[in-house]
Amino acid sequence: MTATPARITAVDTFDIRFPTSRELDGSDAMNPDPDYSAAYLILRTDAADGLEGHGFTFTIGRGNDVQVAAVDALRHHVVGRPVAELCADPGSLSRDLIGDSQLRWLGPEKGVMHMAIGAVVNAVWDLAAKREGKPLWQLLAHAEPEWLVSQVDFRYIADALTPEEALHLLSEGRAGIAEREAALLERGYPGYTTSPGWLGYSDDKLTRLARQAVADGFTQIKLKVGADLDDDIRRLRTARAAVGAGIRIAIDANQRWNVNEAIDWTGALAEFDPYWIEEPTSPDDILGHATIRKAVTPVKVATGEHVQNRVVFKQLLEAGAIDVLQIDAARVGGVNENLAILLLAAKSGVPVCPHAGGVGLCELVQHLSMFDYLALSGTTENRVIEYVDHLHQHFTDPVVIRDGHYAAPLAPGFSAAMRAESIAEYRYPDGTFWVADRTGQENAA
Amino acid sequence: MTATPARITAVDTFDIRFPTSRELDGSDAMNPDPDYSAAYLILRTDAADGLEGHGFTFTIGRGNDVQVAAVDALRHHVVGRPVAELCADPGSLSRDLIGDSQLRWLGPEKGVMHMAIGAVVNAVWDLAAKREGKPLWQLLAHAEPEWLVSQVDFRYIADALTPEEALHLLSEGRAGIAEREAALLERGYPGYTTSPGWLGYSDDKLTRLARQAVADGFTQIKLKVGADLDDDIRRLRTARAAVGAGIRIAIDANQRWNVNEAIDWTGALAEFDPYWIEEPTSPDDILGHATIRKAVTPVKVATGEHVQNRVVFKQLLEAGAIDVLQIDAARVGGVNENLAILLLAAKSGVPVCPHAGGVGLCELVQHLSMFDYLALSGTTENRVIEYVDHLHQHFTDPVVIRDGHYAAPLAPGFSAAMRAESIAEYRYPDGTFWVADRTGQENAA
Repeated sequence: MTATPARITAVDTFDIRFPTSRELDGSDAMNPDPDYSAAYLILRTDAADGLEGHGFTFTIGRGNDVQVAAVDALRHHVVGRPVAELCADPGSLSRDLIGDSQLRWLGPEKGVMHMAIGAVVNAVWDLAAKREGKPLWQLLAHAEPEWLVSQVDFRYIADALTPEEALHLLSEGRAGIAEREAALLERGYPGYTTSPGWLGYSDDKLTRLARQAVADGFTQIKLKVGADLDDDIRRLRTARAAVGAGIRIAIDANQRWNVNEAIDWTGALAEFDPYWIEEPTSPDDILGHATIRKAVTPVKVATGEHVQNRVVFKQLLEAGAIDVLQIDAARVGGVNENLAILLLAAKSGVPVCPHAGGVGLCELVQHLSMFDYLALSGTTENRVIEYVDHLHQHFTDPVVIRDGHYAAPLAPGFSAAMRAESIAEYRYPDGTFWVADRTGQENAA
Repeated sequence: MTATPARITAVDTFDIRFPTSRELDGSDAMNPDPDYSAAYLILRTDAADGLEGHGFTFTIGRGNDVQVAAVDALRHHVVGRPVAELCADPGSLSRDLIGDSQLRWLGPEKGVMHMAIGAVVNAVWDLAAKREGKPLWQLLAHAEPEWLVSQVDFRYIADALTPEEALHLLSEGRAGIAEREAALLERGYPGYTTSPGWLGYSDDKLTRLARQAVADGFTQIKLKVGADLDDDIRRLRTARAAVGAGIRIAIDANQRWNVNEAIDWTGALAEFDPYWIEEPTSPDDILGHATIRKAVTPVKVATGEHVQNRVVFKQLLEAGAIDVLQIDAARVGGVNENLAILLLAAKSGVPVCPHAGGVGLCELVQHLSMFDYLALSGTTENRVIEYVDHLHQHFTDPVVIRDGHYAAPLAPGFSAAMRAESIAEYRYPDGTFWVADRTGQENAA
């Protein structure tokens, strides 16, 4: 009797929503009342090891159901695949999902459908790393350069980066990798914190949290700006007074401005020495970012959390539009596309400082930065991962911050798994929190 | 007793799918087997006039349910709105939909969520035109320039086009408008046909259909290319032989190529004098299109059917990346965003030649080109609307082609309404066609 190979048996999806809008956590100039949410999925298999792959798209509330529907629309590509083959070559699934011509029409490679692809692809990487018994950063850093190149889709970027160039970058990156891994395990990867800077917070709370951030070992904080210039001047002055001259203060407009507004507004804040201006305008406006960058230097220009795919990142680098490239683990088509983006950044020498926060974005993206350090950039200089201190308690392998650094996660996988109790409580609309919430509202009415 | 104003009472949604893949209609290098579909909606009101607003997103099959879910997610913004206010200012709804911060996260302004916004906004314009008793092209052409400017969202494009410039363009456009309207009603608007050129057709069918197109009065046809160079050379030679030197032959690669491939492949076809190369690469690659355009001149570069929004069109024009701008009526955020795009094109002097075909795209987009002719461009020179001759029978006010020209539609509205019988037959999965189809498959099995 021949044993049949283990296969993917199910893609279970969950609409998870946290009521964060009630505390003004996460409030910024474009997103006044986000309810941090996740369109979450679990890949199940019939393998004897009982391992699962977890993945998700982060959203901020309404529309999380649309995002779940998009993951559901991918199910037929995944169920029935042999687990070992899939985990040996997640790129094959990535190509099939991106290449589904009917679903491609809904993008292509952007928005709801592309984020759903990213969630599924990331779940495969989570499963693959668990099967290897390694955290994902380590699986990637230990992988052969040739295999990593095989995981990248060069369509639409080959004019900027060829497979040969990618192989060269990864091969060069192997020198000193063992020393860097030891350093990473010892010190972690630098972080910065956005927790003090939400628009909804009072000046007192801003001061207190900014001082706390410095005390906690962070050397960079970030403030949301863009709603009101006088407020921003006061808040930036307050923050600068709280942290002193030696701490970097990034500012983040969350796409609030037109190109000319971005230039004027950033100029008006320049006296407080902001380190970078993040998302000054539409993430689609490559040429606009280039114009802004020329005008606001020496303030750096950063963007990426809403950049839809590698094609736009390619152009941002080509146009000299950004000083800092901000990958997001759950916006593009998953680990495979982020490998392409990290390679493009490495070729151009632009530092990658990931977007994080939300639900589980810190947990995911730390793996990509740690891989970048070990195998590509070779340095953590001018590189920091965003850190926001909420909702980590819902994850089984939450990030650990020590002295302003992300400690390297050691558990096998992509740190993507949410606690079963959290899913049961915050599943929308039938989780225990939401049922109790509606009951409370009905009783109050 | 005060009469309450009429309100929107419902947004009814329908998943409509036509089994076009079985005939290879619509086959191209990226979309080998499309099932032309529509995520369709009807706005219902409690007004005594009984009028409805119809709108839809065109898709090519799988994922049409995701698109319907996205329209459903917008319902709460629409139901309950006073009809007269809404129709007097569709831009107010457009801004509310685009500005919903939680839903905006799923784009912003791109992909599934943005197309859903376009469908809802277009349905409002359909209703508004019916209430005015005018076809939409005429409502727009007769509107005051100040009001049209108020319907445009200048966010992210103000660096390229200010409200004052838009007003100037529209005010200038009024000169001679009555004469052009008379000419339009007399002659119609030029079209070109893609019907001969689908990849799945034999050379004999291509020859027959190309000759028929010329006999029908078309002065331009289009061929799909990009799957196999030798085939393309043979097919283009066949088509050129069939139509002679005086007919324009556009070619369309449907995003198949990298930048360098696009240059080489187009160069290899240049001896057959192609008029434009359409979608040579990713619609996101502004700088790539600029590179291609420089290399392939005098062949023109055209794109737009998959361009996600006005911000990308702004840059395509700014970068000198296109010779021909191809709006699509159902890809961006509806009439309001297409007004912005038409204004950007008018300022730059780049001709607009809309993408159409699919399900109902010809019906919709003719209104925008006719408005463009009457009120902005002032000419039909080098301007043609794509025409594909299938699925029109499912619409209550199908396009009429005479001597290669779109006849100006005269029925009030946006020509968006599908016949009730067609909806009942092709609604997925419970329409009579699909039920019978499943029964047939089960019996055959």
